[in-house]
Amino acid sequence: MANRFPLDASRLPRRWYNVVPDLPAPPPPPLDPATRAPLDPAALEPLFPPDLITQETSTDRYVDIPEAVREIYRLWRPTPLLRARRLERALGTPARIYVKYEGGSPSGSHKPNTAVPQAYYNARLGVRRLTTETGAGQWGSALAFAAAQFDLACEVWMVRSSYDQKPYRRSMMELFGATVHPSPSPATRAGAAVLAADPSSPGSLGIAISEAVEAAAAPGTRYAVGSVLNHVLLHQTVIGEEALEQLTMAGETPDLVVGCTGGGSNFAGLALPFLREKMAGTMSPAFLAAEPAACPSLTRGRYAYDHGDAAGLTPLFKMHTLGRGLVPDPIHAGGLRYHGMAPLLSHLYELGLFTAVALPQRACFDAGVLFARTEGIVPAPEPTHALAATVTEARRCAETGEPKVILTALCGHGHLDLAAYDAHLSGRLQDRPLPEPDLRAALSHLP
Amino acid sequence: MANRFPLDASRLPRRWYNVVPDLPAPPPPPLDPATRAPLDPAALEPLFPPDLITQETSTDRYVDIPEAVREIYRLWRPTPLLRARRLERALGTPARIYVKYEGGSPSGSHKPNTAVPQAYYNARLGVRRLTTETGAGQWGSALAFAAAQFDLACEVWMVRSSYDQKPYRRSMMELFGATVHPSPSPATRAGAAVLAADPSSPGSLGIAISEAVEAAAAPGTRYAVGSVLNHVLLHQTVIGEEALEQLTMAGETPDLVVGCTGGGSNFAGLALPFLREKMAGTMSPAFLAAEPAACPSLTRGRYAYDHGDAAGLTPLFKMHTLGRGLVPDPIHAGGLRYHGMAPLLSHLYELGLFTAVALPQRACFDAGVLFARTEGIVPAPEPTHALAATVTEARRCAETGEPKVILTALCGHGHLDLAAYDAHLSGRLQDRPLPEPDLRAALSHLP
Repeated sequence: MANRFPLDASRLPRRWYNVVPDLPAPPPPPLDPATRAPLDPAALEPLFPPDLITQETSTDRYVDIPEAVREIYRLWRPTPLLRARRLERALGTPARIYVKYEGGSPSGSHKPNTAVPQAYYNARLGVRRLTTETGAGQWGSALAFAAAQFDLACEVWMVRSSYDQKPYRRSMMELFGATVHPSPSPATRAGAAVLAADPSSPGSLGIAISEAVEAAAAPGTRYAVGSVLNHVLLHQTVIGEEALEQLTMAGETPDLVVGCTGGGSNFAGLALPFLREKMAGTMSPAFLAAEPAACPSLTRGRYAYDHGDAAGLTPLFKMHTLGRGLVPDPIHAGGLRYHGMAPLLSHLYELGLFTAVALPQRACFDAGVLFARTEGIVPAPEPTHALAATVTEARRCAETGEPKVILTALCGHGHLDLAAYDAHLSGRLQDRPLPEPDLRAALSHLP
Repeated sequence: MANRFPLDASRLPRRWYNVVPDLPAPPPPPLDPATRAPLDPAALEPLFPPDLITQETSTDRYVDIPEAVREIYRLWRPTPLLRARRLERALGTPARIYVKYEGGSPSGSHKPNTAVPQAYYNARLGVRRLTTETGAGQWGSALAFAAAQFDLACEVWMVRSSYDQKPYRRSMMELFGATVHPSPSPATRAGAAVLAADPSSPGSLGIAISEAVEAAAAPGTRYAVGSVLNHVLLHQTVIGEEALEQLTMAGETPDLVVGCTGGGSNFAGLALPFLREKMAGTMSPAFLAAEPAACPSLTRGRYAYDHGDAAGLTPLFKMHTLGRGLVPDPIHAGGLRYHGMAPLLSHLYELGLFTAVALPQRACFDAGVLFARTEGIVPAPEPTHALAATVTEARRCAETGEPKVILTALCGHGHLDLAAYDAHLSGRLQDRPLPEPDLRAALSHLP
């Protein structure tokens, strides 16, 4: 019995899928914070190349993937679809669990799916240097790899606390040729100001964004972003397009599609092509987003206009937000510690097209340990949220006898997160759902 | 143009290949150190189950792979064969470079190929607990995973210095359910004796072997070994059997097969099926083993009877040895720091069936960095030796214009070795070939 469904290289997707034209109502536009009028896309030109701005606002159903991008995708794509038979057996469930695994990419997660086209469009414009921020380092290492493919310099501002605690991620970025600054850094005015006030500042993602955006103002330089925006979600749809074809090969149609959500790009990448099929009437899966109880933007956030960064420098986005003032508990799933949800996904959530659940981290690590022992892949902390939701549903199927087909995304490996597993296995990890007073305080910052 | 050659799950090998019956002369037998007479295989029964002892001494050309082992192999096998087109382009070479990648396994290297059958045969015998030693942790984490598949307890003695410096490998073993002791440990007489003499002993592989072997004397317990012995090399031939079929798919026959050698199991696993084809006259590749200049058993060792461990507890094996008294420089390719070479490979070397080259580690890390930046896979330090030899040959082809087909084994990823890359990139890594006086001193211990 097959438990892997490889897709032939010739079946690598040729187009990204844009869900916007298929929706019953268009998503609310971003606003200029000064005027609260819809943002003029030209305002983004200092940050992004025109191709990406066009994709950000596109209403075309499909966008062709450039051949130069597909050539690099082929280093690790199509990615495998796995049938988790040994996990099913351990759970005693009649459910059939399929896992789309993105951990075989150069940086070990789904992030290069968008880093590569972003580097490509910038290189085509004549840009010579990309800047970005990174928290735990997943996005920074993906962009470092992608920049190297097009001979672009890459500078990454890495939150100081992660820079000190996660030297392996920094090493990986340097191995791919990037320059890594601990943030706050003296290299920018924003960073220098923070250091002047507090020389031992541990930094924050908000500060790092400010530094990377400031540095992008230099000649020949642009900024790159790892999640949340429409063009990022667009690029990630290669995940779902491949999975759709692989499930067909397996002779299955999904009853449930599950992904973890931080900024939302991994869940969107898996789910949107299946949502297209559902809207076209060819299948009828339910969609479930699994978010951390410590940072539950979908289940406890407000659907409102808010800034994308902590400092309030970005345009205003209509999204589910916990308030940009929130500093979430330092859970180990660093990739899910973001105060907002992708505006496009937020819109879909309001339209009732998917549901969400918030999960405490210990149950997630339990699911990660079970998956590693049965299936032989150590998941990153982020996708353990999707696995925990999958395990819960599969156990429910064991009670009801329902042979559900569950599809989930394993968006990265946990090889650089073994310290978190160590903390879990030794009982040092605690569940800390977001306290109600913290949420109220953060929401009071909404503009 | 395809640059990945996936093999369908239905083509997973059904048999391991044993080169012994195809050789012009049989390999010299192991000796009982007390009598210097050929070892009675029954003497191994306290350590290994009968199935593995039979394989160790088999003259059958093929051994069937049990279906229970194949089922677990299918979690990550067949492994991909990659065409390294971007590396070729960076080198400007007409050579065609094919890479058999084993880093997608549960522990990230080729080691589970033998850990799984070893756990299986022990479980079938009714064994309930496996013991082993590990240096850097690659083998220990492979056995930890394999033991979990058959509900066997697994206890690993990990060299104290690695235990302290490489907590991620320890975490991975524990994640897979194993118990990890720093060695020397108070849990064995051998360890306690060392600790009594030196409470802060950093340990050695020799001490760790002694502890694991001693612990295997407990009821329901056996010992497992990660390289060197015939049955281990046998299990690794799945690598070469798959690569043979994949190269055929690609329409290629190799001119050169390159692998790195420590104990020898990775190189043997790749090379032996191609050697069979060469002896049958269907192709005529050259074979090249790449070993570290700090521990050059093939190129500078003596072909003599020596013990497999530092303490002299094992039988005597005829092999290329630097002397069991050698303590090699702590190069970062921990998996290649072994004083001896697999007896079977040593025999083949004496028969002139392959050649070997010793490489300094900085050139190897340079090749690793180049490979990561062009092909998007961070290699473990061990296979960077094979990559460095490959790069040298491909550059030679660029000069001669020869379109050689080079096949190499990338036996593991380097996600848990990024500190070594960091040391290399920051210039802290030094080349330290084995000094002649150290070699002479170590050889003086030959029995």
